[in-house]
Amino acid sequence: MKIAVLPGDGIGTEIVAEALKVLNVLDLKFEMETAPVGGAAYEAAGHPLPESTLKLAKAADAILFGAVGDWKYDKLERALRPEQAILGLRKHLGLFANFRPAICYEQLTHASSLKPELVAGLDILIIRELTGDIYFGAPRGRRTAPDGHFPGAEEAFDTMRYSRPEIERIARVAFEAARKRNKHVTSVDKANVLETFQLWKDVVTEVAKDYPDVKLDHMYVDNAAMQLVKQPKFFDVVVTGNMFGDILSDEAAMLTGSIGMLPSGSMNASSQGLYEPSHGSAPDIAGKGVANPLATILSSAMMLRFSLNQPQAADRIESAVQHVLAQGLRTADIWSEGTTKVGTREMGDAVVAAI
Amino acid sequence: MKIAVLPGDGIGTEIVAEALKVLNVLDLKFEMETAPVGGAAYEAAGHPLPESTLKLAKAADAILFGAVGDWKYDKLERALRPEQAILGLRKHLGLFANFRPAICYEQLTHASSLKPELVAGLDILIIRELTGDIYFGAPRGRRTAPDGHFPGAEEAFDTMRYSRPEIERIARVAFEAARKRNKHVTSVDKANVLETFQLWKDVVTEVAKDYPDVKLDHMYVDNAAMQLVKQPKFFDVVVTGNMFGDILSDEAAMLTGSIGMLPSGSMNASSQGLYEPSHGSAPDIAGKGVANPLATILSSAMMLRFSLNQPQAADRIESAVQHVLAQGLRTADIWSEGTTKVGTREMGDAVVAAI
Ligand SMILES: CC(C)[C@H](C(=O)O)[C@@H](O)C(=O)O
Ligand SMILES: CC(C)[C@H](C(=O)O)[C@@H](O)C(=O)O
Repeated sequence: MKIAVLPGDGIGTEIVAEALKVLNVLDLKFEMETAPVGGAAYEAAGHPLPESTLKLAKAADAILFGAVGDWKYDKLERALRPEQAILGLRKHLGLFANFRPAICYEQLTHASSLKPELVAGLDILIIRELTGDIYFGAPRGRRTAPDGHFPGAEEAFDTMRYSRPEIERIARVAFEAARKRNKHVTSVDKANVLETFQLWKDVVTEVAKDYPDVKLDHMYVDNAAMQLVKQPKFFDVVVTGNMFGDILSDEAAMLTGSIGMLPSGSMNASSQGLYEPSHGSAPDIAGKGVANPLATILSSAMMLRFSLNQPQAADRIESAVQHVLAQGLRTADIWSEGTTKVGTREMGDAVVAAI
Repeated sequence: MKIAVLPGDGIGTEIVAEALKVLNVLDLKFEMETAPVGGAAYEAAGHPLPESTLKLAKAADAILFGAVGDWKYDKLERALRPEQAILGLRKHLGLFANFRPAICYEQLTHASSLKPELVAGLDILIIRELTGDIYFGAPRGRRTAPDGHFPGAEEAFDTMRYSRPEIERIARVAFEAARKRNKHVTSVDKANVLETFQLWKDVVTEVAKDYPDVKLDHMYVDNAAMQLVKQPKFFDVVVTGNMFGDILSDEAAMLTGSIGMLPSGSMNASSQGLYEPSHGSAPDIAGKGVANPLATILSSAMMLRFSLNQPQAADRIESAVQHVLAQGLRTADIWSEGTTKVGTREMGDAVVAAI
């Protein structure tokens, strides 16, 4: 089991260190190698995703990823900015299936912006297509507008696109996932406006025929953004494209009130995967030892389950996290009156102890 | 003052009737003409936006629009579906500036999914560009994928595009609006991924130089979807493109908990405008006399203010709506224990009486 460890920037190093502590007490044998990514890699090697890091990632069974980004790189040209490392890894490894659970932990229900009755017990799985759509579509760039409202003016453009097999494979991932859950898939599109998402809707509808035990409904993306707020528990599995998935998965994560708890995994066709917390690099609290390592620890559990075929080990980690929550331990982001505030390292230690 | 009245489908007829009652007690002289639009126009004339309706709309100073759409048209080819009427009106009248307030009325704070302290007093104005972006960008269609993950497969594609003057004019609308409010503009983009929104960000930043009294910040769309949930009161004016604006304005509207109260207006360069409630045609409650007419009534106030230059009349309507809320009158969608439930017509009558 080869793991490429890419801590990245900001709190990345701190939270990944805790996940490694946890992995190391599982009595499993991993081959681990660490490499720089994002801003850290730009500093070290002049590029956010150096060849050597990409090579390591490609050769691994799974990648444990921290977070990338810092305001100080905002002025760099786009190709050198930290986020390009994520996009590059997704593209070069073909990580087309992104799993983003939005779970509301019983003990943290009060932390949600939403009224407790709306989110208590919430458990949504957002499956976002991750290598297609307008993220990677060509042509794109700047040019003189050939037509439109201001022909002759400078314009910028991008291409949204999805092919039938791209939609089909992510739809299958969603239906398979739903079979192991509440057997309900909501496919989110904008078929009333976009050609791309009319094809999306058509293909998802066809694929659904192979899953008669799963209920499928279609929802426009604007309505989905509303229903997530109005009745989040309506959803079980949500499947959507790269752009809409970017927006809705973050909205859903924030609804739980504890984004510091939410893991994420992105897989390719051979179950190779990249696992990272749903939150970002939080440069404002980096180095202070206060970041919540639980999303990263839970991402390592996802990694064990989906890419390393170690479901029992994954269960052990997840139970240990439940245990520390039940003990009342909280990092600053999820702390509330009556619970015990702990730092990044103490939280990692507590999970290790619980295992 | 020529008003084209387009009631449309579902509850459209009922709610527009109440707005007309209100307009008619203002002691102003309007020339009003009614025409079918959406599904109703498809039934009557075979097209959701018949030539005669479009002509009437073009000749008017303002359009009072109800709502369009019904499940029974889902099977029609896209070009004949009710929503095409909205897209056609936006396009043919050049209605590029969409104003979507998300206001939380004091008496309705409890109706929000969010905790009261997060939404009490909420007053966001979302300004959505409405005639560009991926909504109208060409080329678009289906074809054989020339490259990508599955070359040779069937694919669908759309083009996102914005030109410099298109961005400039909507940015100016936003800065001007912010000057009359809390002098804070948040421009929402996805410049880290899209060429279109890198240009967007660049142009908005340039335009901001003409408005040194207004604070500008930039936010990625995924983060905006989160911050709307986490701290909605952070926002004053939000300006964004057509696609992101579609999603975020609906999310923001739903956060208030009373989308049945929210008006919307879409204007062109000569202040001609289309005014409609933020909610849809609600075919499930059509004809029952229970729909909330207040969003449409408030849309007619927006119409008086922005297109007909009658700010006092607009104020009178808005005060009357405040008054009926203070009286405790509520339609079913905003009803709660201790208030008086009324139907569509009674609510309209109450506003008329308050004027
Ligand atoms: C950093 C950015 C390119 C990325 C995305 O838009 O996909 C991020 O928002 C995410 O969701 O992983
Ligand atoms: C009906 C649809 C085409 C429309 C849009 O996407 O703009 C609607 O959602 C809106 O926001 O007015």
